[in-house]
This record gives sequence, C-alpha cells and structure tokens, in this order.
Amino acid sequence: MTIETIQDLHELGKAAQKAARDLARRSTEDKNRVLLNLAWLLRSDQADVLAANTLDYQEAKSEGLEESMLDRLLLTNDRLNSTADEIERVAGLPNPIGEVIETSSLPNGLVTSRRRVPLGVVGSIYESRPNVTIDIFGLCLKSGNACILRGGKETIRSNTALHAMIRKALSDAGVTVDAVQFVDNPDRGLVDAMLKMDSYIDLLVPRGGASLVKFVAENATMPAVTGGIGVCHTYVDRSADLTMAAEIVHNAKVRRPSICNALDTVLVHAEVAVEGLPMIAKGLTASGVELRCDNRSLSILGPEGSDGTIPANEDDWGREFLSLTAAVKVVDSLEDALNHIESYGSGHSEAIITEDDKAATRFLDEVDAAAVYVNASTQFTDGGQFGLGAEVGISTQKFHARGPMGLKELTSYKWVVLGKGQVRP
Amino acid sequence: MTIETIQDLHELGKAAQKAARDLARRSTEDKNRVLLNLAWLLRSDQADVLAANTLDYQEAKSEGLEESMLDRLLLTNDRLNSTADEIERVAGLPNPIGEVIETSSLPNGLVTSRRRVPLGVVGSIYESRPNVTIDIFGLCLKSGNACILRGGKETIRSNTALHAMIRKALSDAGVTVDAVQFVDNPDRGLVDAMLKMDSYIDLLVPRGGASLVKFVAENATMPAVTGGIGVCHTYVDRSADLTMAAEIVHNAKVRRPSICNALDTVLVHAEVAVEGLPMIAKGLTASGVELRCDNRSLSILGPEGSDGTIPANEDDWGREFLSLTAAVKVVDSLEDALNHIESYGSGHSEAIITEDDKAATRFLDEVDAAAVYVNASTQFTDGGQFGLGAEVGISTQKFHARGPMGLKELTSYKWVVLGKGQVRP
Repeated sequence: MTIETIQDLHELGKAAQKAARDLARRSTEDKNRVLLNLAWLLRSDQADVLAANTLDYQEAKSEGLEESMLDRLLLTNDRLNSTADEIERVAGLPNPIGEVIETSSLPNGLVTSRRRVPLGVVGSIYESRPNVTIDIFGLCLKSGNACILRGGKETIRSNTALHAMIRKALSDAGVTVDAVQFVDNPDRGLVDAMLKMDSYIDLLVPRGGASLVKFVAENATMPAVTGGIGVCHTYVDRSADLTMAAEIVHNAKVRRPSICNALDTVLVHAEVAVEGLPMIAKGLTASGVELRCDNRSLSILGPEGSDGTIPANEDDWGREFLSLTAAVKVVDSLEDALNHIESYGSGHSEAIITEDDKAATRFLDEVDAAAVYVNASTQFTDGGQFGLGAEVGISTQKFHARGPMGLKELTSYKWVVLGKGQVRP
Repeated sequence: MTIETIQDLHELGKAAQKAARDLARRSTEDKNRVLLNLAWLLRSDQADVLAANTLDYQEAKSEGLEESMLDRLLLTNDRLNSTADEIERVAGLPNPIGEVIETSSLPNGLVTSRRRVPLGVVGSIYESRPNVTIDIFGLCLKSGNACILRGGKETIRSNTALHAMIRKALSDAGVTVDAVQFVDNPDRGLVDAMLKMDSYIDLLVPRGGASLVKFVAENATMPAVTGGIGVCHTYVDRSADLTMAAEIVHNAKVRRPSICNALDTVLVHAEVAVEGLPMIAKGLTASGVELRCDNRSLSILGPEGSDGTIPANEDDWGREFLSLTAAVKVVDSLEDALNHIESYGSGHSEAIITEDDKAATRFLDEVDAAAVYVNASTQFTDGGQFGLGAEVGISTQKFHARGPMGLKELTSYKWVVLGKGQVRP
C-alpha cells in the first residue's frame, strides 16, 4: 500500500510491532533462511532493481545532482553482488537473541538471569545509498527486530524494488512480510510524523549527513542513535616514531577521506615539529591533501601556497572535512593536545603516536571518545574491524552503545526469574 | 551560591562537567574515602540535618500536606543511620570503572578492548524523600559520575543541609566538592531549563511519581530513565499449585503495596477459578485488600460488597494502585492472559504461577517486560535482590538498561585500540 497519511504510517507501525513479536521468537534457522533467500535474489534477480535504479539515476541526473551523489545512488551488478556478500556474512554471525548474559542464584533458591531480547521495532531514515535498505533490514532481522525504512526521495524507485525483493525473501522463508515496512512516499511531513511514533518505534537510526543526524536527535521522541560524525585528531607526541607517524597520518586521512573515522586535524608536539612536520606533510601533499596550518606549522612548512599549505581559519578546528583537507597545528605539550581535542573533538576516534607509555596511558585515560588509539590509524573504527561482524552505524553517544553498533547493540535484555514459590520477606 | 538564573544553572553544569573529568580517574580508594566520610557524618553529625528537616516538616504540616507525604519527607536518627548503612554498602561494591569488558586481537596485531567509563554527569529530579540526595550521590560517585541534584521544594532545607554534608565528605577526602551540584532554588522554571541542558547532563534520573517520570520523558533533551511505574500482573495458570499461588499473590500485593513491583491485577485461569479464587481472595481480604472483580470472578467470590469485592471498572485494568487494592479477572487460557498483559502491562514485572514447564516457557518468552517470573513474587524486582548491590531506579525502557539499574548501568565504555604502527589496507 502507498503511505498517504499519518494514519497510514501508524498502521504500518502497528504491523511492524505485531511482526516484531513474531520475529523475537524466530529460530536462527528461520532468520538465516530469509537472509540466504535475499542474498540469492540480490545475485540472481537483479533486473527489476537495476531498472528502477536507472530511472532514479536518470531523474537525479536531469535534476543536476552532483557527480558524487549520483555515484552514491547508483546500483550495479557488482554492487548488488557485494550487498549479497554482506547479507551472507550477517547470516554467518551468531544469533544474539536468547543469549544468557549472566545468571545467579539467590540464597533463597531463586535463579535470576538476564536474557538477550530484541529492541522491537527499529526505524531508519537514510539518504541516497539504496543498499542501506538491505543492510539495515539484514541486521534488524538477524537481531530479531522488525524495521521501518524511510530512504531518500532520490532513490524511491530503487528502494521500492529492493523492498519487494525483501518481502519475497521473507515470504519464501515463511516469515511474515510485515517484518519490513517501507515508507514509499517521500513527503517530508511523514518523516516528521515518524519521529514522533515512540509508541511504535523503539530505536531510530539515522544514516546520512550531519544535518540529518542532528535533525533526528533534536526531533525524535524515541531513543535515536547519534553518530556517524567524526572530527578526528591524531596527535604526534614528542616521543613519536616520526616515520610511523607520517604513515599513520597519511592512512588516516587519505585511505578514505569521506568517512567519519578519517583524520581531520594533526597535532604535532613542538619539540618534533621541525623534523616531523615536513615528513608528515610530504606524503599528504603528494596525495593532494590541502593542509590548513596554524602560524607555527606554516612557518615550518613554508610560506602560504607552497606544498598545498594555507593558513587555517578558526573554524577549521573542529571541522569534519570529509575530503582531502586536513588542519595542522603545533602544540607545546600533551596537555595542550588533550585540551584541543576536548574543545574540538566530536567524541568519535582520536589517536596518539608515541613511544612513551606514560603519554599513551594518559591519552587513553583522558580523551573522552568512542575509540582511542595508540600508534594506529583511526580508520580502523568500524564494526567489521572491531570484531562485531557488521555495523548498523557508529555511535558517538554514551548511552546504550558507543562506537560501532553491531547485532548486540540492536538488543535489550529481560530479567528471567525462576522460583519455586518464593515470596519476599 | 544560590541558583537564581538559567545562567547560574549553566555555570553549575560546567562545574559538574569539569568535576566529572576528575572523578573519571579517581581510584577506588579515593571514592570509598568520600563514601565512608559521608557515612560517618550521617551517623555522627546529624544536628544540622535534623534541624533543617524539622523546619521542612513543620512548614509542610502547616500547609496541610497529607500524612503519607509528611512521613516520606521526615528524617530521623534511625533513618539517617540506615542511609549511612546504605552508603557503606555502596563503598563495599566493586568499582565498575576501568573494567575491561572484552578484548580481542586482530590478525594484524591490533589489540582492541572495551573499557568501562562513567557516563559523565547524571542529573536527578526527585520528590519528597530527602535520603534520595544521599543515595543518588553515592551511586554516582562510586560509578565516577558527577551529579546535579534537584529535590522537591518541600525538602529544600533538608537537602541543603545534606548537600553541605556531602561537600564536607568530599573535601575531607581531597576530592573536588564540585562532584555534587545542588539546585537550591525550588523555582519550576529551573527544572524546565535543566531538562534542556543536554550539553552538560548525560543522563537524567527522575525519582518520583508517574507524572514526574512522564514529564521528564517528554521534555528532557538528554537521555532519561523511564521507569519506576509498574502495572504488574500475576497469572494463575490452570496447572498452578493453588496454595503457592495464594501465598505469592498475597506477598506480591500486601508486603509493600506502595512500590512499583507490587501486584496490581490477578489473572486466574477459568479451570481453576472456582477452587483457586476463594483461596487467593481469602488472604487478600483478610489483609484489607479491596478486590475489583470482573463479572466472572465476582460470580465466584460472591455478590458485590461481600469480602471486600466490588465490580471492576474498565480503567482498573492497567491501573497502578500503589495501595491495598487489586483487580481480579478470570481468563480462559494462557493466550488470553498474555493478551491481557500485553494490552495493560507497563513492562515492569509479570509472573506466572504454574507447574507446567511449557506454559512457563511460553510466558517467559512472550511477555515483554523488564522482569518475568515463574512461581515467585514480583516484589523481588530490586537491585539488591538481583545482585546489583544497590539501585538508582528501575527502568522499564529497553534502551541502555532494563530493570533495576545499579552502578554498571550508570556507565558507558570506550574502545581502546593499541597498535604498533598499523594502518588500514
């Protein structure tokens, strides 16, 4: 059905809630059957999805969407195959539901335990990339949650086709098709209404740019994931191995500059700046990185304009560049670095390069971020890299889950108490 | 200083945030020294607190506050000694901060672990009972969190005196007195402002009646605990041991009728209602419990008015009585009981009395509540009973923590990544 009104949206919420009760009790086998069906369809039944995507693409192009956005919404045979791989990987992950987290016996013989259960209904509001439709559904299903998906209007046809594919995968596995709900109307008013559906949606996951995440955080009445925005620093300590520092900084910025764990600002201790900064800058500028420098680093790296260096503006500190741009600053101490990170960091991923255990320990203890690193690239902040198998997003909040959120982070627990007639004195 | 303006409140937020950074790194010994100082002061230096409490009490009495409320705000020598015991117990609990939750090594040699850290600043808005000032502070301090406390206006003098005592305990232990912040102005506008201080407060804990909890949930812009409200059912299955059922139901209602885990509605399977209902009703009515019965239970228990039975209104289902009142209903099946609980329960504590393992399993699996019981009194839902040592409250939400919240539930974690120069391919 096409969602026209807020009432329709509520009906869809009710259907999701009903499906969630069914999903909560599904076996690993049932859930994996759906996922493997879906992977199979993604590989072998691409025609409808690709045709729908072509229409989305042509319309977006005719409307003058910029090249990088066009690329994000494009689906290809390869991309659908990669998405199928991803879904098979999720099928291979352990089922988190039913896990007994801890158990204890009271002196009166009562046995208490905490048992992992799904959250219920997960809503997601996302932009451009249509494979998010599949990713979010896969993680929700495996964790026993129903989902309500609202993708961007620029991929409405692609998402509609993917939604039909998911329903077929569910139906063929004998699982209710209501496990996935799709808002097939790009009206923004429906997004506003969805953000108030706390009686139907247990968690809202925004996937997109900073403005979307902020909008959801400020307007959602249910818990929402805040994250996906990273202003990430790498601090090169006075005891750093400078060759290592240059390699790590290069990787943290250049490997994929457009993701949230990419480096934004390099802080270099004054005692090693004269030797270290040129080493670090050389690799970066060779890869086309523009360096926005404070006065002290500019005086070391040479005048404005040489080697891709320009003076930093005040708002370059604390900026998430998402591009081949980095801010550079010389600091006088670890203390100064910590203060800078506290003022400008977003609590995502922060690194120190040092050979000094004391400095490393202080950095790990005092930096308040989802991920803190010693001598490694911040680009490792990722559910796959951290052993979660997959991720629904990266949280920068402290409540519930912090850092990469995998299957377990889409769950809650219930206390199960087994008695033989005990009453409380 | 007296808080007069929203700006003052923000200054207090900043001070708390600064103190939180210090507290996050305090040793177990430092924190316990504060707690033991506080316990000592609570026992040996009661004069100021008791004098302040007398003024609060007299004013409340002259304003015609009802007896039960007067009792709640009263402090006595014994009550302060009990609070001291409680604080000593918290001192004896393991320090949750720094615990390594899990650790793993990647094939590239990177070692990742999750380390438990405090949330930061916990705000609490609470009513009447002044010992909450001490309880919340104790749990926050032990879990490394600073706190901002806003008690009820009826206990402002008592709370001011307790706040001074806490500051002395902190100061004598060499810990910043900013670890506790107290809003010493009962102006409601300041509460509204506090609910918007998401840049200073990481978690808000309301302690009080349903209207306070609801107000906080709807208006707080930071995460808030939703809980402390329990519409609790006990379902007597057709296979129940009816003597056990009568004892458990009696305990769940009568032991302490005014707490959130107390029974509100008894559901009895039709096959055992004729024999079981009178057994259950006998003990309850002997303890002065008013039974609000559906037609079928009324026809078994006798006409209206006999034995304390009256017909139930529609709004008695789903009501939290908090008094010696219970609703009673006959159901035709476990299925009907599950549906009733789903419609009317608040997701707090729900019990089945049964000798049938299949029925027990189905109940435990399908009831969506913080605590689900087989053959025991729901009054066991409590942080102390469940082995948490203490509790800051009982959550009925699924996000972050569910059920009793102890020290660990006031924490988050950070990912710590130790490398030797690793970059991501």
